[in-house]
Amino acid sequence: MSDEILTSLQNPRVKQLVKLREPRERRKTGLTRIDGARELLRAMQAEVEPTVVYVCEPRLRTGEPADAVARAAHRGVAIQPVSETVYDKIRYGDRDEGLCAVLAWSPLDLGALDPRPDAFVLVIEGAEKPGNLGAILRTADAAGVDAVILADPVCEPANPNVIRASMGTLFTQPVAAAPTTEVVAWLRDHALRAVVTRPRDGEPYTGVDLTGAVAIVLGAEHAGLSEAWASADTTAVSIPMAGVSDSLNLAAATAVLAFEVVRQRPGRSNA
Amino acid sequence: MSDEILTSLQNPRVKQLVKLREPRERRKTGLTRIDGARELLRAMQAEVEPTVVYVCEPRLRTGEPADAVARAAHRGVAIQPVSETVYDKIRYGDRDEGLCAVLAWSPLDLGALDPRPDAFVLVIEGAEKPGNLGAILRTADAAGVDAVILADPVCEPANPNVIRASMGTLFTQPVAAAPTTEVVAWLRDHALRAVVTRPRDGEPYTGVDLTGAVAIVLGAEHAGLSEAWASADTTAVSIPMAGVSDSLNLAAATAVLAFEVVRQRPGRSNA
Repeated sequence: MSDEILTSLQNPRVKQLVKLREPRERRKTGLTRIDGARELLRAMQAEVEPTVVYVCEPRLRTGEPADAVARAAHRGVAIQPVSETVYDKIRYGDRDEGLCAVLAWSPLDLGALDPRPDAFVLVIEGAEKPGNLGAILRTADAAGVDAVILADPVCEPANPNVIRASMGTLFTQPVAAAPTTEVVAWLRDHALRAVVTRPRDGEPYTGVDLTGAVAIVLGAEHAGLSEAWASADTTAVSIPMAGVSDSLNLAAATAVLAFEVVRQRPGRSNA
Repeated sequence: MSDEILTSLQNPRVKQLVKLREPRERRKTGLTRIDGARELLRAMQAEVEPTVVYVCEPRLRTGEPADAVARAAHRGVAIQPVSETVYDKIRYGDRDEGLCAVLAWSPLDLGALDPRPDAFVLVIEGAEKPGNLGAILRTADAAGVDAVILADPVCEPANPNVIRASMGTLFTQPVAAAPTTEVVAWLRDHALRAVVTRPRDGEPYTGVDLTGAVAIVLGAEHAGLSEAWASADTTAVSIPMAGVSDSLNLAAATAVLAFEVVRQRPGRSNA
């Protein structure tokens, strides 16, 4: 641990941390930031190592935050103490656990995925809202999804709000991103049955066999699925809607479908 | 329709619209605001009538927004034109459909609910996040829930962000609020079986009979269910978690459970 406390708001590292709140800087550098202990612990658990953990000792919370910093130090991660003034400059929104980590993370290419014969893959097209995407990643983790594929994502998956809402599960599972046309081809090449969700006119989702190799495909909050899926060999399913609304929140719809897959595969190993 | 365009930023009605962004003013007046056509249409569909609809003609979008204003006028709702300067002062966050409605709405008391013999009730305790609560209401609408009961809500249900995320389904279904102890007593008095969700140590939710009169009970994002449920006669269920996370997002968990109830009750009328 460096004993030199970083106190200057003019320090280039302070300036970079502030800039890393913006997509532009994240794209430019390939870096992102983590502002909570839970997410930091999960990143390290997945061997996504931070380059630096900034710590404000007087503000570092006991419990998970202090534990996360200790574990980072134990792993040889650089720990940089900062003053309270610097911490208040660099911290993100309402996060106030006394730490902030920087790390390099980017989604996988499709070529890096190697689905097993009965793979359960989740495809989300055009995800827009970081909170929704984070909740979807948390659901995918809980449902034992083999891979999450983001087709034409609008929202950048390394957005700190995605990391937060995912509770760090962005790091603990394979997450890939690619243009939709490539995703359609990849599913075909890997003999993954594409089960697409439609607001209406699909089979009721509970009546469709979701065992075996399957990709559950959901579309964006506003636009739904793009035309690229129309020509693909797909099975269309719908969630029955009893009320006035014609759709569920995207994260809610994902949870309903993902856990129907789980229900239909009792005893499936997630190892 | 008044032809007098409201142009003064000092007008008391403009000041009230700005104040209605804050919980304090909403509590004081019993009023809230709607900033989207979809929600406004659903409120009127449910006969929750706005007191005034403020319209910025040059900014009013065609389609649903223009339609919503026309319908409000047809129902005899006061339509108040405003200048673009006033509209930019009163509009909410990124909402920009050219309209803003004020209406009185508050949750029901438990005494106003009259559950039918096989009622499906959803109880959410200590809901904190407006986006989550809105998504939950949208799910409840889609699942044909008979009533949503908010036990000790932290987040005010009339929050404009709840209204938005609910897509207006806050207005189209019975939504009650009460202290948890009263909710526990009300469920008992109405012979509604309370199925509470626990992170672990419950029966797998798909193995429990959810037909007949049932209340699905979920706890807050952070704290889970309060002690008040420990002494109640409940059935504990869990959603199996395959990954590193020990819980789902609250709206995702609600969706999984609500649609399991639906799955177990095929053909149930939602009339």
